[in-house]
Amino acid sequence: MAFKTDIEIAREAKKKPIQEIGDKLGIPTEHLLPYGHDKAKVSQDFIRSLEGRPDGKLILVTAINPTPAGEGKTTTTVGLGDGLNRIGKKAVVCIREASLGPNFGMKGGAAGGGYAQVVPMEEMNLHFTGDFHAITSAHNLLSAMIDNHIYWGNELQIDERRVTWRRVMDMNDRALRDIVVSLGGVSNGFPRQTGFDITVASEVMAILCLSKDLADLQKRLGDIVVAYRRDKSPIYARDVKADGAMTVLLKDAMQPNLVQTLENNPAFVHGGPFANIAHGCNSVIATKTALKLGEYVVTEAGFGADLGAEKFFDIKCRKAGLKPAAAVIVATVRAMKMNGGVAKADLGAENVEAVKKGCPNLGRHIANVKSFGVPVVVAINHFYSDTDAEVAAVKAYVAEQGAEAILCKHWANGSAGIEDLARKVVDLAESGAANFAPLYPDEMPLFQKIETIAKRIYHADEVIADKSIRDQLKAWEAAGYGNLPICMAKTQYSFSTDPNLRGAPTGHSVPVREVRLSAGAGFIVAICGEIMTMPGLPKVPSAEVIRLNAEGHVEGLF
Amino acid sequence: MAFKTDIEIAREAKKKPIQEIGDKLGIPTEHLLPYGHDKAKVSQDFIRSLEGRPDGKLILVTAINPTPAGEGKTTTTVGLGDGLNRIGKKAVVCIREASLGPNFGMKGGAAGGGYAQVVPMEEMNLHFTGDFHAITSAHNLLSAMIDNHIYWGNELQIDERRVTWRRVMDMNDRALRDIVVSLGGVSNGFPRQTGFDITVASEVMAILCLSKDLADLQKRLGDIVVAYRRDKSPIYARDVKADGAMTVLLKDAMQPNLVQTLENNPAFVHGGPFANIAHGCNSVIATKTALKLGEYVVTEAGFGADLGAEKFFDIKCRKAGLKPAAAVIVATVRAMKMNGGVAKADLGAENVEAVKKGCPNLGRHIANVKSFGVPVVVAINHFYSDTDAEVAAVKAYVAEQGAEAILCKHWANGSAGIEDLARKVVDLAESGAANFAPLYPDEMPLFQKIETIAKRIYHADEVIADKSIRDQLKAWEAAGYGNLPICMAKTQYSFSTDPNLRGAPTGHSVPVREVRLSAGAGFIVAICGEIMTMPGLPKVPSAEVIRLNAEGHVEGLF
Repeated sequence: MAFKTDIEIAREAKKKPIQEIGDKLGIPTEHLLPYGHDKAKVSQDFIRSLEGRPDGKLILVTAINPTPAGEGKTTTTVGLGDGLNRIGKKAVVCIREASLGPNFGMKGGAAGGGYAQVVPMEEMNLHFTGDFHAITSAHNLLSAMIDNHIYWGNELQIDERRVTWRRVMDMNDRALRDIVVSLGGVSNGFPRQTGFDITVASEVMAILCLSKDLADLQKRLGDIVVAYRRDKSPIYARDVKADGAMTVLLKDAMQPNLVQTLENNPAFVHGGPFANIAHGCNSVIATKTALKLGEYVVTEAGFGADLGAEKFFDIKCRKAGLKPAAAVIVATVRAMKMNGGVAKADLGAENVEAVKKGCPNLGRHIANVKSFGVPVVVAINHFYSDTDAEVAAVKAYVAEQGAEAILCKHWANGSAGIEDLARKVVDLAESGAANFAPLYPDEMPLFQKIETIAKRIYHADEVIADKSIRDQLKAWEAAGYGNLPICMAKTQYSFSTDPNLRGAPTGHSVPVREVRLSAGAGFIVAICGEIMTMPGLPKVPSAEVIRLNAEGHVEGLF
Repeated sequence: MAFKTDIEIAREAKKKPIQEIGDKLGIPTEHLLPYGHDKAKVSQDFIRSLEGRPDGKLILVTAINPTPAGEGKTTTTVGLGDGLNRIGKKAVVCIREASLGPNFGMKGGAAGGGYAQVVPMEEMNLHFTGDFHAITSAHNLLSAMIDNHIYWGNELQIDERRVTWRRVMDMNDRALRDIVVSLGGVSNGFPRQTGFDITVASEVMAILCLSKDLADLQKRLGDIVVAYRRDKSPIYARDVKADGAMTVLLKDAMQPNLVQTLENNPAFVHGGPFANIAHGCNSVIATKTALKLGEYVVTEAGFGADLGAEKFFDIKCRKAGLKPAAAVIVATVRAMKMNGGVAKADLGAENVEAVKKGCPNLGRHIANVKSFGVPVVVAINHFYSDTDAEVAAVKAYVAEQGAEAILCKHWANGSAGIEDLARKVVDLAESGAANFAPLYPDEMPLFQKIETIAKRIYHADEVIADKSIRDQLKAWEAAGYGNLPICMAKTQYSFSTDPNLRGAPTGHSVPVREVRLSAGAGFIVAICGEIMTMPGLPKVPSAEVIRLNAEGHVEGLF
C-alpha cells in the first residue's frame, strides 16, 4: 500500500479563510487578528468579554509511556476534535506550538498526522505567529538588564556568581550551553560564566502558559528569581524593573492562535513549555477561551500520563481552576508489544502474548488517571499491521481494569474513523462521573509532595535526596514557596527513572538530583536524571536538505 | 503652545483596513497577507506578476550631516509621499523597519513625526511582522551549523580561530560582544572566542535588502564567507549547506510590509540594515515593487547624503538597476545654525549670520548629489522658532548653488504643508533632467574606489591605509571580488572622520582602519573609525518605564 505523507495530505487541505473558522465559534472578524489567511490571534478584548459565560467540557488526551513505535497522541487529539464535531458537538482542539530550533536538527514535527492534522503545517513548524520569538526577546531583555545593572554600579548588590537567569535562543546550538560573557575589557562588563537554553525551556514560556491575563503575566514575570546576593537573598525580575517591558514584548504572544483541522474545525495552538523542567501543556488562556466558545475542548499533555497528565492535573488544572470531564489514554497495539518485550524490527508479526504482557503499562496509567477522579476511555490508535486478535487482547485487558478500549481509525479516515470514541467521550463527560481533585493538597510539605507523586503515580518504593536538597526545599517553605506544586523532570520512557524499564515496574527508587524554583511560573522542579535544556544538532542536520522547491513549498522539513 | 506628541497623534489616526490601502495600489486581497488589520505582506506571486510593468519615478530623500537639532528626514519622506498623493499623484513611501533592541535603551524611534507619520507606530517599534526575528534565526542557524560541523569531525577543515561568522540578537546587550563558547567539556564542542552583534548589523540583513527574489537571496546567502582554513582559503555558507534552510526561514521576511501614513496613503516598511557597516537603505524588493505600483516612490537613505545617498547610489541603485529621478535634501534652519557654531541651548534665538556660516555643509551635499546626475531640491523642514530672515538666508544660499529651497510644514500640517515641495519634485522628475550614473565604475581597483569617495564626496586630501589593508584589497581583487562597490563606515556627523568637524571641511585625511568582505551582500566595507556593532543599554534604560497602561497601550516606548 502506498500512503500519502502527512505533508502531502496537509498540502491538499481545502483550508477555509480563518474568519470562517472564527465565525463557527462566534468570534467577530474585528476581534480576530489575522496572520495571513489561515492563522489568527483572538483579541484580549474579546477574551475579556467572555467572562461569565458557562464553560464547555474539558477532555484530556494523554498516553502510555512513549515508545519508538509512536503512539499518536496529537493525532488522536485532533481526530477526537473532528469526531466530536462530526457527531454534532461544537468542539475545539487545544494543542501546543512547535519549537523552531529542533526542526532543523531531526525531521520536524507535524501537528497530528494522516487525516487528523492541524494546518497550516509549514508555518506552524517555522515562525508561526511569532510567539516564541517574543518569548525569546522578553527573556533576553531581562538577561541584558541584569548585566546592565551590574555594569552601571550594581546597586542591588547582585552576586555575579549567583546569576541564575541565563539567555535563550530557539535553536539547537550546543556551543551556547556553557559560555563566558563580558570579555574584552571595562566597556563590556564583568566576565562571568553562564549559557543559553532553548526557548521552550524558558521560565517565561511556562509563565505565559499559566497566566490568566496580562496583569497576571506581569505579576508572574516580576516574581521570577534571577539572581542572589552574597547573603543568598533573592533578586527578582521586578527589582531590575524588567517586568513591564517584558509584558509589552509579550502582549501579542498572550493572544491564543486560531487555526483549523483538515476538516475545517477550530484549533487553538498556543504555547509550548518543555514537558520536563516545565509542565508541558498548552496555554491556560487558550484552554479557558476555548471552554467559553465550545461545548467540548480536547487538549493534550506532554509525554505519557505519569508525567503529562499528572502535571496537567496538579499544575495546570489546580492553578487555573479547570475541572476535566474525562480523559482519553492513547495506546497502540505496537506499543503494547514493545512494552511486552518485542523489538521494533519485529513489530510487524502478530504476537498476542506480547500484547498481553505489555498491557500492564496501560493498566497503571488507567488507574492513575482514575485516581484523580477523572473517568477514562482508552483509544487504540489503529495501525494497518494490527491483527484482530491483538486488538481484542487490548480490549479485554482494559475491560478488566473497568474501562473501555475503542479502536480508532482517524489517521486513515479522519473523523469517520473516530466516531465511536467521540460518542463514548460524550457519554463519560455527560454522565457526571468526573469528580476531579489534585493528587496532593497545597499545604503538603514539598518533599512529601515529591514522595506522593513517586509512590502513588510511579509506584516507587522511595525518594532519595541529599540533605542539601531537603534543606533547600525547607528553605523555600520558610520563604513562602511551600504551597507550590511540584514539576517532576524525569525520563518519559518509564514509570521509573530508568528509561529502559518498560511495563509497570515496582520496587524502584526515585533519586532527586536537583531542585529548582520557578517562582514566576509557580512550581518547584524536581530533577531526577540528566535534563538537557539546550539540544545539539545531529551529524547530518535536516537543515542541510531543507529548502524551497520550485513551487515555493518547503522541502526537507517533514 | 502645547503640541501633541507623536504617539498621541498616531493613536488618533483613523486607520483604514489594510485591504483598502492595498486596493489603492491594485493589490488583490488574496495577495495581501494580513498581520492584524493594519499591516500586511505582499505575496511573492503577486510581485512576480508585476514583471514587465513600467516603473514609476524614484525620489530619494536625503539630508545634511545630522546634528543634535534633528533634521526630520523620515518625517519629510512620509510628508512628501502624502503631499504627492494630495496633488493627485499615486505615490508610495518606502522606508526602513525599526530595530527592537535599541527601543529598550533610549526612547524608541517613531516612523516620522507630527502629522507626517506611518502607523501602526507601536507594532512597528516592537515585533512588527517578525522580519528581524526571521533574520536572527537564519543568521544563528548558520552559526550553529558551523560549530556543529566542527564538532562532528570538521571535514571542511575550518580553522576554529578563523571563524568570522558571529551570532546576532535584536537586543542591546554589551555582555555578548565578546564571549567564549563551547565550554563544559567534550559534548559541548571546541572552546573558541566569538561574540554577538545586533541583528541589524547581520550580513543576512544586508543580503535580504539587496536580493531581487528568493533565488537571488539563496545564492547570496550561499556566498557568505563564514570562516577560513589554516591556508586562509575561504569557507562559504553553502559549504556547510546552510543556504537552503536559511532561505526557508527568510521566505516570509522577503515579502514587503504594507502599512499606511496618517493620511491613509500606502507605505512599504521593509528591511533595515545598519548605515555604517552596511548600506542603510530599505529593501530592493520593496522599492521595486512600489515602482511597479505607484507613479512616484519616495524613499530615504540612512545618515547624511555623504554616507546615505552615496551608498544608495553606488550600492543599491547600481546593483538593482534603479535610476532616481530626483533627490530631496532635508535641512533645517536650526541645523544650519549648529553647523555655523551655535550651541544647542542657543538655537531658539535668531542668528542669520550663523545660518549663513553653516550653509556650506548643505551646499556641499547639493553639489555631491548633483554629481551623480540627479536633480536636487532642498526641503527646509520648518520649526516654530525659525524666523523669516533665517529661512530667507537658506533660500538665498541654495539659489546661489543653482537649486531651490522650499519651506515645508508637513510636521504641523501634514500634506497641506508640503504641496510646494511635491510640485517641485514632480517638475524635476518630469523634466527629464536626471541622468544618473554611479560615482565610479565597477572595474576601478578597490583602493581607488575608496579614494574616489573620500576625495570627491568628503573632499579629503588623501586616504591613509596600512600596507596590510592595501594587500587585503589586492587579494580580494585576485579572488574575483574587485568589481564590488565600497561600503564606507565612518562617522555620520561630519564629512571628515572627526565627528566634531562640522560645516564643509577640506584638507583632512581619511584613515582606513580595517576592511571587511561582505561577499553575500556584495560589497567591501571600509571602516574609518570605531564602529559599534552591539550597543549597550544606558544606566537607566527606557525598558525600566516601558509598560502597558490600563487601556492596553504601550507607555514609555516613545
